[in-house]
Amino acid sequence: MTKETAVSVLELGRRARAAAATLATVPRGVKDAALGAMADALVRRTHEVLRTNDADIARARDASTPDHLIDRLTLNERRVAGMAQGLREMAALPDPVGEVLRGSLLPNGLELRQIRVPLGVVGIIYEARPNVTADAAGLCLKAGNAVLLRGSSSARSSNEAIVGVLRDAVVTVGLPADAIQLVDASTRDSVKELMRARGLVDVLIPRGGADLIRSVVEDSTVPVIETGVGNCHVYVDAAADLSMALAIVLNAKTQRPSVCNAAESLLVHEAVAAEFLAAALPALREAGVTVHGDPAVADAGRLAGVDVVPADEADYATEYLSLDLSAAVVGSLDEAIVHIRRYGSSHTEAIVTGSQAAARRFVAEVDAAAVVVNASTRFTDGGEFGFGAEIGISTQKLHARGPMGLPELTSTKYVVVGDGHIRN
Amino acid sequence: MTKETAVSVLELGRRARAAAATLATVPRGVKDAALGAMADALVRRTHEVLRTNDADIARARDASTPDHLIDRLTLNERRVAGMAQGLREMAALPDPVGEVLRGSLLPNGLELRQIRVPLGVVGIIYEARPNVTADAAGLCLKAGNAVLLRGSSSARSSNEAIVGVLRDAVVTVGLPADAIQLVDASTRDSVKELMRARGLVDVLIPRGGADLIRSVVEDSTVPVIETGVGNCHVYVDAAADLSMALAIVLNAKTQRPSVCNAAESLLVHEAVAAEFLAAALPALREAGVTVHGDPAVADAGRLAGVDVVPADEADYATEYLSLDLSAAVVGSLDEAIVHIRRYGSSHTEAIVTGSQAAARRFVAEVDAAAVVVNASTRFTDGGEFGFGAEIGISTQKLHARGPMGLPELTSTKYVVVGDGHIRN
Repeated sequence: MTKETAVSVLELGRRARAAAATLATVPRGVKDAALGAMADALVRRTHEVLRTNDADIARARDASTPDHLIDRLTLNERRVAGMAQGLREMAALPDPVGEVLRGSLLPNGLELRQIRVPLGVVGIIYEARPNVTADAAGLCLKAGNAVLLRGSSSARSSNEAIVGVLRDAVVTVGLPADAIQLVDASTRDSVKELMRARGLVDVLIPRGGADLIRSVVEDSTVPVIETGVGNCHVYVDAAADLSMALAIVLNAKTQRPSVCNAAESLLVHEAVAAEFLAAALPALREAGVTVHGDPAVADAGRLAGVDVVPADEADYATEYLSLDLSAAVVGSLDEAIVHIRRYGSSHTEAIVTGSQAAARRFVAEVDAAAVVVNASTRFTDGGEFGFGAEIGISTQKLHARGPMGLPELTSTKYVVVGDGHIRN
Repeated sequence: MTKETAVSVLELGRRARAAAATLATVPRGVKDAALGAMADALVRRTHEVLRTNDADIARARDASTPDHLIDRLTLNERRVAGMAQGLREMAALPDPVGEVLRGSLLPNGLELRQIRVPLGVVGIIYEARPNVTADAAGLCLKAGNAVLLRGSSSARSSNEAIVGVLRDAVVTVGLPADAIQLVDASTRDSVKELMRARGLVDVLIPRGGADLIRSVVEDSTVPVIETGVGNCHVYVDAAADLSMALAIVLNAKTQRPSVCNAAESLLVHEAVAAEFLAAALPALREAGVTVHGDPAVADAGRLAGVDVVPADEADYATEYLSLDLSAAVVGSLDEAIVHIRRYGSSHTEAIVTGSQAAARRFVAEVDAAAVVVNASTRFTDGGEFGFGAEIGISTQKLHARGPMGLPELTSTKYVVVGDGHIRN
């Protein structure tokens, strides 16, 4: 099996490279027509997709999969229609390919332009949700890339059906079916083979839990874009409007706790800690949140009659993705910044303050993909930022940082035009 | 020794991180003053630098190092003055940090800006030339990064002296000495430790031969920017001005054969092969070039009375970096593009043609950092492109592609400002 999988991923890679060479020079009209055909086909063949999804769900139930994971796996007419709608919205976005990023006439008369070009072959490794299959395929195609999709084995029947529908659709507008390929999800070996397919795969984007991302980052010889681990903080400054701060903390923690831009940790300046926590701890309890606090937070909890779990080092470093929140009282803005540098994952960090000086320092000194002043951490999102769909949120510093839309799925090329120029 | 080196690189990394936090928020004026102080100090302490360089040269002679490598290693007053001049020119370049790349007022009233920020800690691994030490230190500092410099062991005394001078200089303007640190070059272990210093080092840039770059790319868990391997082609199209083509081929091959943007391979369309090669082969011989050709080129050589070495697969894949040139006759533009896709290193590829259609197709279909029409491959260079000094030429597609100046030594950050915004 190992050997067969190995050959197979490399062969998929070779087919993807050939498809990428075609896609690289396809004009926008054809790509948008493909996205439209993909959307239409998904709607038309919804029942076929739902039938295979039933098979995945049955297998998941047999394996005693928890309900919330079965919910993530489940498709229905509305969700398939949502996938189709997403593809149609991508067609409406500008084509990043061919954009001239800069250009000049050099002193010697050479014309220089830097233009956007596709990356080539993009590998995406992702977990349960089958709607990612259509999103990722659409975004990669619009940016002129061939994609290798490695979904989770629990969604393999649904993913096979969706990819089959999409491949049939791109062929109808004259594009190669191999623009979109599914990688065998029945074994871990296919992930390893993807990570070693240097020269065939231009970039790997792992989307999922911290363990998946760490293993890909450490073992891949293919360049990787790290995504989505968010240990996000909300810092309530001495100069904060405390009712604004409470609304932001509640929203950042509870509006959707399972996602990477949810808050995981609360820092409160000691000057406002007593007053803020007296209101915040009961409100958090009301919202179902368990607070893991330092001794100062625990003291405030006792006064407010709210249980606070004692926090240890591990709590401050944890991305709970649940209705848990670590909390600490800090003596100063500096202490908050030092805490965030130590425990943060450089995803999204927020300050609530009325002080221009504090906001300016926080923005300058906190090193993260997104730094937020007086708003919820939940806004770090391609859709919220107006980029359209996103392929993930990069938490690394190279190439792309923060929500990644179409431009982040491209590279660049310099074009130099002369009339016989030689160098002296 | 291994153990000590390991501790030492990690400790250097921690000091670099601390320095990077300071550098990230230093305004341009201070950084430019540091560059000026660095330049002044190099000039003032030239003799000290040259004395240590003598020690490196003596050691190299004892090791029977070839003359051309000793030349690369050798500093003199003029070369040190050149290093100082390079630093002064960096001071005159715009500061990339803080540049607002895009921004908008979102529909909900949130202000969104994407700004340039430093990468953090940059590791540079490089070979003989000690002038790279000052160049790399200056560029990293101007872009707000702390740098870890791992030069070659043959230049270690010179590098220690230069780094000592530069560290003393940055302190005079109030910046931390650890903005610039030299990594022990006496053992290979320090390279390995740099490659594993994930979390301390943000990016590694190897500059040097193909073997060094390959080993760093394959073994590093720190993100890498691949640089500088160039198997560059000049394709002489059926519609080429043949005298322009000859001038370009001679320039691209012979003007400086040891560098990555020199041409290594010549492709000639069969329609002009006889006429072009009849002139080109004698001219190349005159310039000292050995041509490794396919049978068609060999035939042309016999007619012109010029010896052609038979070329094999390996020749077409080789970056000679010498006065050798592989050559082949191709039946069409398509065949040339296929050949370049197969053997090229995606550095710089040139076409000589009078045909707009051929130029347009070559530019669109050849996938390389730089695609050149009717000019020498030698122009792919930060200085020539008007970027000022360059830290290297990236041949990868992520983050930076082509000559890397100051903007390529930065990342970005999103700044989101609201007045109590929460997400529904």
